[in-house]
Amino acid sequence: MTALTTPFSGIWPALLTPLDANLDIDLDLFARHSRSLLAAGCTGITPFGTTGEGMSFSVAERRAAIDGLIARGVPAERIIVSTSCAALPEAVELTRHAVQVGAHGCLLLPPFFLKGVPDQGVIDAYRWVIDKVADARLRVYLYHIPQVSGVPLSHHVIDTLKRLYPQTIVGIKDSGCQREPSLALADKFMDDAMVYVGNELDLPALGARGSKGAISGVANVTPKLVARLVGQPDGPDAARDLARVTEFLQILGGYGLTAAFKGVMAILDDHPGWLRVRPPLVSLDDAELKKLRGQLQAFALDRSRD
Amino acid sequence: MTALTTPFSGIWPALLTPLDANLDIDLDLFARHSRSLLAAGCTGITPFGTTGEGMSFSVAERRAAIDGLIARGVPAERIIVSTSCAALPEAVELTRHAVQVGAHGCLLLPPFFLKGVPDQGVIDAYRWVIDKVADARLRVYLYHIPQVSGVPLSHHVIDTLKRLYPQTIVGIKDSGCQREPSLALADKFMDDAMVYVGNELDLPALGARGSKGAISGVANVTPKLVARLVGQPDGPDAARDLARVTEFLQILGGYGLTAAFKGVMAILDDHPGWLRVRPPLVSLDDAELKKLRGQLQAFALDRSRD
Repeated sequence: MTALTTPFSGIWPALLTPLDANLDIDLDLFARHSRSLLAAGCTGITPFGTTGEGMSFSVAERRAAIDGLIARGVPAERIIVSTSCAALPEAVELTRHAVQVGAHGCLLLPPFFLKGVPDQGVIDAYRWVIDKVADARLRVYLYHIPQVSGVPLSHHVIDTLKRLYPQTIVGIKDSGCQREPSLALADKFMDDAMVYVGNELDLPALGARGSKGAISGVANVTPKLVARLVGQPDGPDAARDLARVTEFLQILGGYGLTAAFKGVMAILDDHPGWLRVRPPLVSLDDAELKKLRGQLQAFALDRSRD
Repeated sequence: MTALTTPFSGIWPALLTPLDANLDIDLDLFARHSRSLLAAGCTGITPFGTTGEGMSFSVAERRAAIDGLIARGVPAERIIVSTSCAALPEAVELTRHAVQVGAHGCLLLPPFFLKGVPDQGVIDAYRWVIDKVADARLRVYLYHIPQVSGVPLSHHVIDTLKRLYPQTIVGIKDSGCQREPSLALADKFMDDAMVYVGNELDLPALGARGSKGAISGVANVTPKLVARLVGQPDGPDAARDLARVTEFLQILGGYGLTAAFKGVMAILDDHPGWLRVRPPLVSLDDAELKKLRGQLQAFALDRSRD
């Protein structure tokens, strides 16, 4: 593995994907948002995860968008690309591409169409990708989000992969959003592979156990707040920050999550490109947007602190 | 819509996908199996559904395999291609390809990565594919298999799509494998769109309600038996046939389903290409294969009747 120029620590927003009127990716807006998050102190960005509707875009679109971000000034080493696909040859193609352009790392789900698959099949799938990419520069973050993917990553799977590829498996993104399993994962694996939680409410608990960062959807909007939650879990703003993120998640919870995130961005950026989603998601309608606008005014986002 | 040269009725096995030692599709064996099923009286074949591990193969592999079947003597009009993908542009590409090569029709899932999506999003997704393919030759079979895809097709979704595209939506493959919902679907939609069930044990009940065929995994092995179950639900062999298929499914139920189907084919064909699966599935091991061999001997497959 080559020396890291960008550390794993800090906030890597689970990047939302703005769309143009044809529902193609708006690369200029995508890159502008990425650069603004880096300017706000994020270590990097994570495009094409679940919040970013990653699986709604073709392999060709995903490759072109990563190239487009880099061409527009986003440093490759500050990108963790979700290269997850149902078909392993396509996961290999995207993972190889990410390594070749110099991305910091890859966020990788197991194949997610078939359900009830054995642990050995999940291990075989990761081995397929890592062995075919066969590049010492590859850094993989295992992605656990069973309520969406339908395929959990057991401790046995993680442990086996970490033993097989100690240099390649560098972290675990745990978006299971269940505190006890998240803490168990941290207690078992934090020494060997950094555990990031996707549930912002669990960030202080994980930060206290040594988690150095987060891949977070909320960080698209409140990167500084999320950074303090995990980085300063006992800091002077801890109680206020947890209350703020709880309030923000309660607002979003009244809508479809990704559509709501995009609605927030559309309001804050005053740009319709944020509002659009690809099917099977549905954009907020006018009434929802109006309601959300009122809720956001009450929330009173403070860019200097949030 | 062009006149149909091959009717919808009859048995269309959910085709298993044999693999070579590199776990690439063995096109010669794939085509040979397809031709043998047609010779045994099947109306057509259905590659790349769930039993066929369809989502484990890349878009390029799936296109090439359909071309390869046709080049090896499988009539295009006897192929219903599963063109389902998580990303709509890729579903469009495969669906367009299937239409252009003259396939009988397409079996189409909603996008299956995101869960809990609204009905409107599922409708929008189907519209995306049908409107972008924009070809009067397109025939779509809606594919309902929520225990795997995670995205059910509600009556509202089916009804809306059938009204929007009365000529294009020609059937529903219901692999939900729950009898009451299957019967409700048949009662509501059989007049307008043929309902096929994927659960062989429900075939006589559906046949009695007018279902004219089946897309069936079991039909890879026992095509004649499956044909009688749905085509002659009150025929002289009905009780014996139902007992036979029940026994066969009980044998398979002791293993992972697709791996077990492939184990059966490996034993019957004496060919290791059938045994192989792509991760995240796992092949039967030697002990399982030995046990299965004994069970198959007791089952005593009769090619003339089964």
